[in-house]
Amino acid sequence: MEFSHISLAHGNGGRFMRELITGLFARHLGNPWLDTDVDAARVPIGDHGEIVVTTDGFTVQPLEFPGGNIGSLAVHGTVNDLAVAGARPLYLTLNAFIEEGLELAQLERFLAAMSAAATEAAVHIVAGDTKVVPRGQGSGVYFATTGIGVREHGIELGMGRILPGDRVLVSGPVGDHGTAVMLAREEFGLRGDLASDAASVLPVTQALLGVPGLRFMRDPTRGGLATVVHEIAHATGATVRLQEPDIPVRDPVRSVCEMLGYDPMYLACEGRVVSVVAPESADAALAAMRSVGCPEAAIVGEVAAGRAQAVLVTELGGERLLEELEDDPLPRIC
Amino acid sequence: MEFSHISLAHGNGGRFMRELITGLFARHLGNPWLDTDVDAARVPIGDHGEIVVTTDGFTVQPLEFPGGNIGSLAVHGTVNDLAVAGARPLYLTLNAFIEEGLELAQLERFLAAMSAAATEAAVHIVAGDTKVVPRGQGSGVYFATTGIGVREHGIELGMGRILPGDRVLVSGPVGDHGTAVMLAREEFGLRGDLASDAASVLPVTQALLGVPGLRFMRDPTRGGLATVVHEIAHATGATVRLQEPDIPVRDPVRSVCEMLGYDPMYLACEGRVVSVVAPESADAALAAMRSVGCPEAAIVGEVAAGRAQAVLVTELGGERLLEELEDDPLPRIC
Repeated sequence: MEFSHISLAHGNGGRFMRELITGLFARHLGNPWLDTDVDAARVPIGDHGEIVVTTDGFTVQPLEFPGGNIGSLAVHGTVNDLAVAGARPLYLTLNAFIEEGLELAQLERFLAAMSAAATEAAVHIVAGDTKVVPRGQGSGVYFATTGIGVREHGIELGMGRILPGDRVLVSGPVGDHGTAVMLAREEFGLRGDLASDAASVLPVTQALLGVPGLRFMRDPTRGGLATVVHEIAHATGATVRLQEPDIPVRDPVRSVCEMLGYDPMYLACEGRVVSVVAPESADAALAAMRSVGCPEAAIVGEVAAGRAQAVLVTELGGERLLEELEDDPLPRIC
Repeated sequence: MEFSHISLAHGNGGRFMRELITGLFARHLGNPWLDTDVDAARVPIGDHGEIVVTTDGFTVQPLEFPGGNIGSLAVHGTVNDLAVAGARPLYLTLNAFIEEGLELAQLERFLAAMSAAATEAAVHIVAGDTKVVPRGQGSGVYFATTGIGVREHGIELGMGRILPGDRVLVSGPVGDHGTAVMLAREEFGLRGDLASDAASVLPVTQALLGVPGLRFMRDPTRGGLATVVHEIAHATGATVRLQEPDIPVRDPVRSVCEMLGYDPMYLACEGRVVSVVAPESADAALAAMRSVGCPEAAIVGEVAAGRAQAVLVTELGGERLLEELEDDPLPRIC
């Protein structure tokens, strides 16, 4: 490791974070069930079968943004990690690190949003803990949520199941969450009519689980669609080719990104699913998503034999490589 | 609620914290499985039976102290909440909120201690997440751990099972952790040969689970022995009478507490068990604890019909009431 102290780059979703997690956390804490490449672990429970477990910390700034707040995000984020693992979320635990001076009315808005999000996903918060830290040792509130679920379909999913010819789909427009949070930061002095897409993806994953030929699902959060596709390419050793004209991006997201120099391919979504399905199942997967309120779901690319690389085919037919994120362009979006 | 903003008193283990949790968190997030009076929840898992779930946040200052650090504490604390619920811990999840500028060598010491504590308790950390927060928005590191376990003995435990005549036992000297952390704070300018008792209590709880007549177990952390006894008195409507001469307190703990005006009855332990057993089982419980390396385990009191109150019988035969903690005398000990 090139660093002697933690820097912000260790949290920015790129190479340094990966090195911190694999080189330090996993080296000390490794065990057969800890897989730093997946967001949820399947673990045996006595003679009773198996549960699926995931956990996430939330430090988004600002704490409230169009379309949600840190409370709803903490529930959606953890619910979604279980959902894309093919699990039905059952229980959450909640830790709150609250900074002295936080307004109680604001805390109450987070809890109300959390409650609504939990009700929507039919999960129960069964254990919690609160700690108060002195003023200047937090930033309002940090939440940590752990999710526990069960797999009901018995369907095996994973990057290892992806084959050349498979299609890549997204359940809706990309980049909304990242752009909405960015605009909510006063530093940009911009206001748009954009809202975060933060929501439970359970309806989408439940619909996709009914489609034969489903190989893999992931929610494209930190690092966005490009990062998921890059991971698929490197895990499968294949080329993933995305068709830029087919990728749904809302006009205001496109405008803001062009103005500020961001690439929506790399911006976080908090209510979308990237899925990979067998070629003959692509239309069924699309129809399944559209049937649960995703009119903009789209087939956006294909897996092809070849080098391990993620490629974007542009409107004009040119190709550009989607590189691994070195440094998150937009820190603290979750 | 009398406050409009979060104050440090909301985190200090006393009345304001209880009001925050019941009046705000539980009001919004309540469900049949969320019981703010217990540290671990028993929840059904599909047709597969039941798991036990607990969660805790850790903000101890200083991050390292004689006998442990925030890493070992985060594992022990969560393991122990499962252990006193009669469960065998299986899995942990870990969230780390790391402040920019934390020395990597120090972080590595926390993870090594965490690993050793997990190995000792035979638990696996199966999911984790790291977030880096900017300098001045943390205090080195905060950890949040969630624990998942199973009950193997089928023994029902709870304050509701306590009867008049039952005996109260502790597994070892009280107040070590609170005193050790306090001394590790430079502000006191004191150094002692005291170490925290932070450790897994699994050997103790496993031994006690073999004793017929076991009613209840709890680890006396924030608020110490007095707070557990106070809770027992109010949950059962009975008088709990502790014999001060029988309560094990190490001499250096007693000296430091006398010097600084603390009461060891209210100081946190992180490796002790308070248990309540039927009168005819008290000697067996004592022997069980001594057989697993607790030579100073002791029978310290008795439950008696009468008013709901916690009473300390002093060396001279006088009685004094152990009041509910209004404000933790020693914040951030876990």
